Amino acid sequence: AGKGDPQPAGRDVDFPVSVVLPAGGTGERTGLQTPKQFCSFLGRPLISYTIQAFERVSWIQSIVVVVARENTDLMADIVRRFRHRKVRAVPGGSTRHRSIRNGILALGEEGGERPAAGRPKVVLIHDAVRPFVDEDFLYEIATAAKEHGAAGAIRPLVSTVIATTPEGYLDHSLERGKYRASEMPQGFTYDVIHRAYQRCSQSDFDFGTECLHLALQYCGTNAKLIQGPPTLWKVTYKRDLAAAESIIKDAVSRSACFVTGGSARAAALAGALQEPARALGTELDVVPDLTGENASYLLKEWNFIQFSVDHSRPAEVEALLAALEAADRAPLHPLVVIWVQWSDSDELLGGRAAAAAAAAVITDLSSAAKLRNILLYGIQLHQSKDSERWERSVSKVAEIASVLIRERSPALVGQLLQA
Amino acid sequence: AGKGDPQPAGRDVDFPVSVVLPAGGTGERTGLQTPKQFCSFLGRPLISYTIQAFERVSWIQSIVVVVARENTDLMADIVRRFRHRKVRAVPGGSTRHRSIRNGILALGEEGGERPAAGRPKVVLIHDAVRPFVDEDFLYEIATAAKEHGAAGAIRPLVSTVIATTPEGYLDHSLERGKYRASEMPQGFTYDVIHRAYQRCSQSDFDFGTECLHLALQYCGTNAKLIQGPPTLWKVTYKRDLAAAESIIKDAVSRSACFVTGGSARAAALAGALQEPARALGTELDVVPDLTGENASYLLKEWNFIQFSVDHSRPAEVEALLAALEAADRAPLHPLVVIWVQWSDSDELLGGRAAAAAAAAVITDLSSAAKLRNILLYGIQLHQSKDSERWERSVSKVAEIASVLIRERSPALVGQLLQA
Ligand SMILES: [Mg+2]
Ligand SMILES: [Mg+2]
Repeated sequence: AGKGDPQPAGRDVDFPVSVVLPAGGTGERTGLQTPKQFCSFLGRPLISYTIQAFERVSWIQSIVVVVARENTDLMADIVRRFRHRKVRAVPGGSTRHRSIRNGILALGEEGGERPAAGRPKVVLIHDAVRPFVDEDFLYEIATAAKEHGAAGAIRPLVSTVIATTPEGYLDHSLERGKYRASEMPQGFTYDVIHRAYQRCSQSDFDFGTECLHLALQYCGTNAKLIQGPPTLWKVTYKRDLAAAESIIKDAVSRSACFVTGGSARAAALAGALQEPARALGTELDVVPDLTGENASYLLKEWNFIQFSVDHSRPAEVEALLAALEAADRAPLHPLVVIWVQWSDSDELLGGRAAAAAAAAVITDLSSAAKLRNILLYGIQLHQSKDSERWERSVSKVAEIASVLIRERSPALVGQLLQA
Repeated sequence: AGKGDPQPAGRDVDFPVSVVLPAGGTGERTGLQTPKQFCSFLGRPLISYTIQAFERVSWIQSIVVVVARENTDLMADIVRRFRHRKVRAVPGGSTRHRSIRNGILALGEEGGERPAAGRPKVVLIHDAVRPFVDEDFLYEIATAAKEHGAAGAIRPLVSTVIATTPEGYLDHSLERGKYRASEMPQGFTYDVIHRAYQRCSQSDFDFGTECLHLALQYCGTNAKLIQGPPTLWKVTYKRDLAAAESIIKDAVSRSACFVTGGSARAAALAGALQEPARALGTELDVVPDLTGENASYLLKEWNFIQFSVDHSRPAEVEALLAALEAADRAPLHPLVVIWVQWSDSDELLGGRAAAAAAAAVITDLSSAAKLRNILLYGIQLHQSKDSERWERSVSKVAEIASVLIRERSPALVGQLLQA
């Protein structure tokens, strides 16, 4: 996921691990038409973020997504568009437990004629609407599941839990310290979870929700409980969509690559921008061009700032757009390209009139780029001999660039902003 | 709170109700330096939103905010800046219960020499970090508290609650249907909550957190439990800050006032904008000017779109800015003013060159307006005889205006955007 999304070195796992991702929810609690797992963030459905969280872990072999029949085509489309490689979709059942069982059974069939050979040692079960699980925690759950038969994420209770009388009055409150919230992911050896689903009752299938409970009741396995980070939370209410969007936007706006084109003026500007950009949450990597080792930015960075002196000739920004297209990135996030144009004129009106041609150019370039999921914006920076005014302009560039990178607003694409 | 924040007709309450708002939290769980209740949203601390939620309720008499001693000056500054009228701040204690008790005692002293006369019949207790409580629900809690002695908000449990063994394994899981999460607000008759704090033990003061429990244990009062809306949730984690910001931004971007200046072209444009603006979540009210009855918009609307044909003469937008300044609104949110400039020229470069003067004007006006918490942006709309191009421009105005109104970005103030 590029520089914006650093991965841990990652301890390796020497046994086969696969994932079941129930994604049949209908999203009642958000009050939206679209089930939460299919709500889009920066143009990409939530479930694709969750799939990616597992797919990028080298020791995870396959991911079975369990979806309602009516969403089979939608799911296939998501897998294709976002180039997921380890995913298979299977139809869900009428309840959560039936859906998870379908996923477990599908994993058991992966060996073809030698089913036992294809079975994973450990199965991780997660929610499609908990996209921010990280590799370290998956490792903890997977290894604890192998050792203890079952393992589950827990969190401290945020509210006091109370028991009510049938008439709706307080009966008693629980001692908060003795209880925990059971979260996801959970992990099981294939044998434990498979046996639990073979033995459990129709009533469990109809009304139960907690896999840890089935492992305890039908296999005598007391799950090991591990406290997870708050990012494990489940996207449940409408407000959670905004929270998820904010986390996703943070992740892709942590860094940007500033391309100077070899200009000394650009390097000076980039140097002056680094501090204010950092204060706004974005690290600037400054490079003369994107050749040689720096070509790797084309494969990992989500944000580019292209400097140019002569704003009527867009050769440099055109070359950057072409290079990004050639890199053929998986379309996981929209890319941001900010074209910073240095205007020599100290005279405001003259500078602005000269910018008119550039404005027309950027409008055209941005329309074409948008079709390839690249958001192109312009900033015109007015050179000034007045050092105070110059400093104001530089921090304005930093402010504007930060907003453009962070918000990734399609509505502002093609605008030439003034700094 | 203006059109963006409609209030219910409001049933009246014929007994005195006051509020205690413990605000001593240190915000560990957000991972931020600033305690959550003092984090700013659109330039205003969260606690001011919570205070306003109570202050706007006509039947609430006074609000005692309990703050840590080191935040006394900060709190006084907030009360002054946002013109809160019903608020008194008192110093907190070393634990939550001690802080709430301080608030209760402060309420008991309001009658001066006749303390009993000043005491409220019912005390509502709420968290400073639950800003979205509405009048209807406060009414339900207050009346139930008067009837039953105590009342509290509850919510269904989102996660399964489990009991753990001392070694960190699953012991058993609770039947979700029998339990609820205890939330805020809670309400008590003054007598019940006062007596509960008189009788409870040092251990309760040290380790307890649940007022409903004290009322039950020390006064034998079983609180009436009432399910509240999900908006009652407590801003707890960093992600909750983004969720709260999104709700606040939604609330102030639901409507905008489009001032045509009497121009027929402007009225036609406004008519064409209404549908796309609505699709993006903003209702447009179209008025010729802000005189007569329409002057009321100056007192309640957070968003204005001022149309003008001749963009080199800013008389109309200057008049609007002056009228907003004269209205002397409480500075609860930044106001957005979007100056839409109609450019007659069908020729792109010509139109843009002509806009240069206007760009300089808007830069100057916006700097002055920003000091008064008014965010001024410009959109230049290019007239076109090509009807397809014209329609594209109109929907571009709607898109850009929606982003400006919703995001209220200070970084983009003074920009002249092209539609
Ligand atoms: Mg990680
Ligand atoms: Mg209300």
